[in-house]
Amino acid sequence: MAEGPIRLGMVGGGADAFIGGVHRIAARLDGHYTLVAGALSSTPEKARASAEALVLPRGYDSFTDMAEAEAARDDGIEAVAIVTPNHVHADAAIAFLERGIHVICDKPLTATMEDAHRLADAARASKALFMLTHNYTGYPMIRQARQMIADGDLGTVRLVNVEYAQDWMTGAAEGKQAEWRIDPARSGAGGAIGDIGTHAYNLACFVSGLKLDKLAADLDVFGAGRTLDENAHVLLRWQGGAKGMLWCSQVAPGNENALRLRVYGDKGGLDWSQEDPNRLWFTPFGAPKQMLTRNGAGATEANTAASRIPGGHPEGYLEAFANLYSEAARAIRAHRHGEAIPGDLLVPTLEDGMDGMRFIDACVRSSAQDSDWVSP
Amino acid sequence: MAEGPIRLGMVGGGADAFIGGVHRIAARLDGHYTLVAGALSSTPEKARASAEALVLPRGYDSFTDMAEAEAARDDGIEAVAIVTPNHVHADAAIAFLERGIHVICDKPLTATMEDAHRLADAARASKALFMLTHNYTGYPMIRQARQMIADGDLGTVRLVNVEYAQDWMTGAAEGKQAEWRIDPARSGAGGAIGDIGTHAYNLACFVSGLKLDKLAADLDVFGAGRTLDENAHVLLRWQGGAKGMLWCSQVAPGNENALRLRVYGDKGGLDWSQEDPNRLWFTPFGAPKQMLTRNGAGATEANTAASRIPGGHPEGYLEAFANLYSEAARAIRAHRHGEAIPGDLLVPTLEDGMDGMRFIDACVRSSAQDSDWVSP
Amino acid sequence: MAEGPIRLGMVGGGADAFIGGVHRIAARLDGHYTLVAGALSSTPEKARASAEALVLPRGYDSFTDMAEAEAARDDGIEAVAIVTPNHVHADAAIAFLERGIHVICDKPLTATMEDAHRLADAARASKALFMLTHNYTGYPMIRQARQMIADGDLGTVRLVNVEYAQDWMTGAAEGKQAEWRIDPARSGAGGAIGDIGTHAYNLACFVSGLKLDKLAADLDVFGAGRTLDENAHVLLRWQGGAKGMLWCSQVAPGNENALRLRVYGDKGGLDWSQEDPNRLWFTPFGAPKQMLTRNGAGATEANTAASRIPGGHPEGYLEAFANLYSEAARAIRAHRHGEAIPGDLLVPTLEDGMDGMRFIDACVRSSAQDSDWVSP
Amino acid sequence: MAEGPIRLGMVGGGADAFIGGVHRIAARLDGHYTLVAGALSSTPEKARASAEALVLPRGYDSFTDMAEAEAARDDGIEAVAIVTPNHVHADAAIAFLERGIHVICDKPLTATMEDAHRLADAARASKALFMLTHNYTGYPMIRQARQMIADGDLGTVRLVNVEYAQDWMTGAAEGKQAEWRIDPARSGAGGAIGDIGTHAYNLACFVSGLKLDKLAADLDVFGAGRTLDENAHVLLRWQGGAKGMLWCSQVAPGNENALRLRVYGDKGGLDWSQEDPNRLWFTPFGAPKQMLTRNGAGATEANTAASRIPGGHPEGYLEAFANLYSEAARAIRAHRHGEAIPGDLLVPTLEDGMDGMRFIDACVRSSAQDSDWVSP
Repeated sequence: MAEGPIRLGMVGGGADAFIGGVHRIAARLDGHYTLVAGALSSTPEKARASAEALVLPRGYDSFTDMAEAEAARDDGIEAVAIVTPNHVHADAAIAFLERGIHVICDKPLTATMEDAHRLADAARASKALFMLTHNYTGYPMIRQARQMIADGDLGTVRLVNVEYAQDWMTGAAEGKQAEWRIDPARSGAGGAIGDIGTHAYNLACFVSGLKLDKLAADLDVFGAGRTLDENAHVLLRWQGGAKGMLWCSQVAPGNENALRLRVYGDKGGLDWSQEDPNRLWFTPFGAPKQMLTRNGAGATEANTAASRIPGGHPEGYLEAFANLYSEAARAIRAHRHGEAIPGDLLVPTLEDGMDGMRFIDACVRSSAQDSDWVSP
Repeated sequence: MAEGPIRLGMVGGGADAFIGGVHRIAARLDGHYTLVAGALSSTPEKARASAEALVLPRGYDSFTDMAEAEAARDDGIEAVAIVTPNHVHADAAIAFLERGIHVICDKPLTATMEDAHRLADAARASKALFMLTHNYTGYPMIRQARQMIADGDLGTVRLVNVEYAQDWMTGAAEGKQAEWRIDPARSGAGGAIGDIGTHAYNLACFVSGLKLDKLAADLDVFGAGRTLDENAHVLLRWQGGAKGMLWCSQVAPGNENALRLRVYGDKGGLDWSQEDPNRLWFTPFGAPKQMLTRNGAGATEANTAASRIPGGHPEGYLEAFANLYSEAARAIRAHRHGEAIPGDLLVPTLEDGMDGMRFIDACVRSSAQDSDWVSP
Repeated sequence: MAEGPIRLGMVGGGADAFIGGVHRIAARLDGHYTLVAGALSSTPEKARASAEALVLPRGYDSFTDMAEAEAARDDGIEAVAIVTPNHVHADAAIAFLERGIHVICDKPLTATMEDAHRLADAARASKALFMLTHNYTGYPMIRQARQMIADGDLGTVRLVNVEYAQDWMTGAAEGKQAEWRIDPARSGAGGAIGDIGTHAYNLACFVSGLKLDKLAADLDVFGAGRTLDENAHVLLRWQGGAKGMLWCSQVAPGNENALRLRVYGDKGGLDWSQEDPNRLWFTPFGAPKQMLTRNGAGATEANTAASRIPGGHPEGYLEAFANLYSEAARAIRAHRHGEAIPGDLLVPTLEDGMDGMRFIDACVRSSAQDSDWVSP
Repeated sequence: MAEGPIRLGMVGGGADAFIGGVHRIAARLDGHYTLVAGALSSTPEKARASAEALVLPRGYDSFTDMAEAEAARDDGIEAVAIVTPNHVHADAAIAFLERGIHVICDKPLTATMEDAHRLADAARASKALFMLTHNYTGYPMIRQARQMIADGDLGTVRLVNVEYAQDWMTGAAEGKQAEWRIDPARSGAGGAIGDIGTHAYNLACFVSGLKLDKLAADLDVFGAGRTLDENAHVLLRWQGGAKGMLWCSQVAPGNENALRLRVYGDKGGLDWSQEDPNRLWFTPFGAPKQMLTRNGAGATEANTAASRIPGGHPEGYLEAFANLYSEAARAIRAHRHGEAIPGDLLVPTLEDGMDGMRFIDACVRSSAQDSDWVSP
């Protein structure tokens, strides 16, 4: 096991970018990576200033420069984290995949379906790995929920309801975070549905193991002058007969990141909330509700494997995110040694990203057709 | 104010009937009624045995006998509570309304739209009052929520989401409670949507003050051999542009009576759960979430008026139910004295009952049309 | 079972008195009593006005008049509820006990130990029953907790911690409720410790089944011009080796009626909060925490017997209080028929009242001796 | 700001040691340190194996070797983390302090008062910094609580109650974690009071700003064959007149790391629980309770400064711990540049460690004197 950390680069994530800092902490937390290069902004001066501020060994003006230069070095980066606005994901990812550099990409996959297919082609053509940071799948209790359902603890799943509510777009959207998210050219066709709805959808699929058959969506814009949805109500029909519902909103005052998943089968139910992530509520039908905890009594192997510290000392968002990076590291190291990629990896893949894109697309199509049922 | 209690009769509510006992306690709790007569079962022997067990002054074999006999007495009942299965509501109510006896009827209004119209005609033709026990509207925090929204504390309402989840039909449905509820002839066209969906819908309307424009529903049956819906996912479009979603289920393990209402406007949000009814969570947008309590700090007049005891000593379901009975008593006494019915009464009316019937009907129609948008 | 209600009188509880109204509702809720007489205030005019407002058949100017007159009637009261300030309890109770009229008395037993002994002598000399409304013992989950401990579900009890926090005395104490509570002449030697500490202590004893060996108390007054304690921290040593702690306060902002009991044994733990009374948290050591609910999955017979409606529809403070009245009714009816008092009655007795008095006295003594250990 | 990370060493924290891994993550999380050396076990073979497993550049057999060798290198460690059992703290810390190497030491300070004084002397004689990881002080909401009290938001503080409950010692204590904690030679005179009571005490002091005047403690052992306390109930008298109570326990089933702090003043109250650390409940007296959140609405500067990511995405125990390491880095860098140590540092110091030692000692003395009041 004793071997050096993975050399990591980053595209995007300069000063003021929330998610870039998250990726850096996630990469660092378990000690599997060392960040050695970056093209941290699309504006060269900002890119350089940010690289300097982070004491990065090698700062680049653009991801193209970085991909070329790093690929040419013996000690070049082995993997790159892409944390730009959505419309840059495809070109950036392709630049590295074509050069055999592994890609860890933020979600959603891309801004457009066309970009998604280009990226998918490049990923399939490359020997390098592609991983997508649907980070909520990294929470230990989510891992346990997935395992319990796979093990049949809920019986046949009948209902999967998921919601993700925020409130920060309730008033005027301001600042860098809001700016690109409300611009279709940079964000893609989905607003809230792309930004957080995809997380909710991904989580529902990840935990339940179900595939979506059809959806009927009602997307809304309330804020003056905006075009992208701020709220979406979606009916879900899962393959095999289960039903569900997805609600996402960025205009629901009193919600910070209220992602909640509920799954009900004929033998039991599960309930999990991201803002209280160390607990999972499990009710075997007819018996008292149980509070399962991270690394606590009743923890499954999947829970414990994703935990660092004993129960009762909360792990949070950054640890869940780091779980994806640590799993990615296992895959990258296997690749480094010419070994097969471990079969038990849970880190989301290109296929999950394509699913997310189809989901956004289907929501937008359905809503445009007055909430007709459409297949993703 | 000092005057004798209202003489009350009851139709239905014999031994083993859950809701009959609830109505009796609700009528008794604030001392406004005295129960003096009853036709407590459609089976005469059971009716008689139940009347004896309750030490009722006057037991009857049928509601027809009771209506006739009581109407003929000087000290006959002034009001009757109807707590039978749904399909009996219309005939029973009409029998009393035609004789000038006030009716306090359990929900939903009737089993069929045809019955609803018959009942509506009788109610409109009668001088007697008709009141419907959508009891959740009686909770003090719900009264406060309604008042806050009317006062503009949320600004323009954009979203109204409501859900009511139970789990008792997850397995085989057994016992008297289940039996008639899964029989379309007695329950009506709606299963869960009629039994608890109407409560959720009524609560959303009551609190938000909005009227529904259209809905799109997906109703489901999972249990073998059943025909009525056990689960419903419904998209809501309110008049004026607000959106919403209603979920009701009787097959969601881990939920007892998980009725929850959330309303979001451009200035704030409200969140209330029936299982924790003495609290109302209010977030003025951009400020910390506040926990408003029954008769506690921040209580409005509507809250205090519906409370009996200081904050921190929980009032519950029976007190909320009793609030409807106490309001009904105010109306009945006004009627007794030939005075105008108070204008501030909040107890649900025939119109609320008709709304509920149209809601059930619309859900069933929409679901039959593959979740098309329909108007209620 | 079919027999008429118990004829009840009331001493105290006129207009503005909080606890009188509670007793009336509690007596009425299950239909076992009819309130026919009262001496509702120590001020005759107020007594008369209150009797009239309540449409009481027989209003009296003083409890002495009432005791004499009612004892002389064939249809006189069978029981009396005493809901006056503490210093009146003894004389009032004695007046009725001496005449063979059952007494249902609010807590604490009396204002002074001397009064307590006089009352105890009268109660022992009387054939009438004496019951004390330590109402929190009426909660269904508390009954279940008691049963579980008696059944050994916690193993050997090691720790019993109880607390009761309020905040209403934080500022200037105003109004009728505060006035007599801060006056030693009317309230007795204990302030918060007498008013709410006794409730907490009684609950701890009731549930755990333990007897107190010794206590060490630190009582405090923070408000200017007050003499009775507003806050008490008490170390507890139970007979048999268990330990514990009691905290009560009326100056803890953010607490309405935050009574919480926690009991820990070598096999498990229990946690209950009065403000969320329909839930009891049970952790078998080494297994997940369980949420037991009123009349829900995992409910014991003691829980169900004290419940009226299914789980998930909250019952509250008034229902718990009514449980004491309903149990008292069982005893009174047995007495009426010359039968033995049922052996399974859980309604608190004179002995519980004496325990409470000794507890207050011990706290005051210990605190005066710089928190020395004293026996109650 | 752009400068290289701090070179860090570690004493203790080999395989199986919980707290060593925590320190390593905490040091790594914000990127301020690089771990380059370690004497990770008192058993040389284990020390070497652990160093190899961690890919440490320089592994040592003992802390003495490490202190000497590192002090002699130009690129030797600048700081050392001491994460051994308590009885090693003093000697290890002294070895590094004498050589001018900064010490970041786990709590409690030492196993004995004598050791504490030796360490204190060494720390005072050294130019190097000494910091103690009372990590709970690193939580953003705790920082906000401290700031609010200092700013007078609670008015005059009257009550400070703190508790820390665990359950892992309920049964037989097994494993490396338990083994040394129940051995007075390695743990010191305090069991639970030393292990977690000191955390609770430190937190109460840190947040309230109060100094303890006197305490009265009742310490208990329930487990067969143990000598150190597993449970402590402690009455607190703060300087200036405030009162309080501390409960710590390792035998309370259902508690993982239930550290809770409540502070009440004449203007308001605060309530915080470590297992839900991103929320702080604040009640201005007479107004509704508010839920303050990490980096959310109502966050103070102290809260935001200790946060990495927006509200609603939970940060946890490791981030709070990392906050201490990051603050320590500020101090170490100031020292590196010959600048004054920043005046706004909140990381606990030698004095906090000495306070904790006096607290343990006072609890043990008081309990031995039948809970007499003693001064720490």
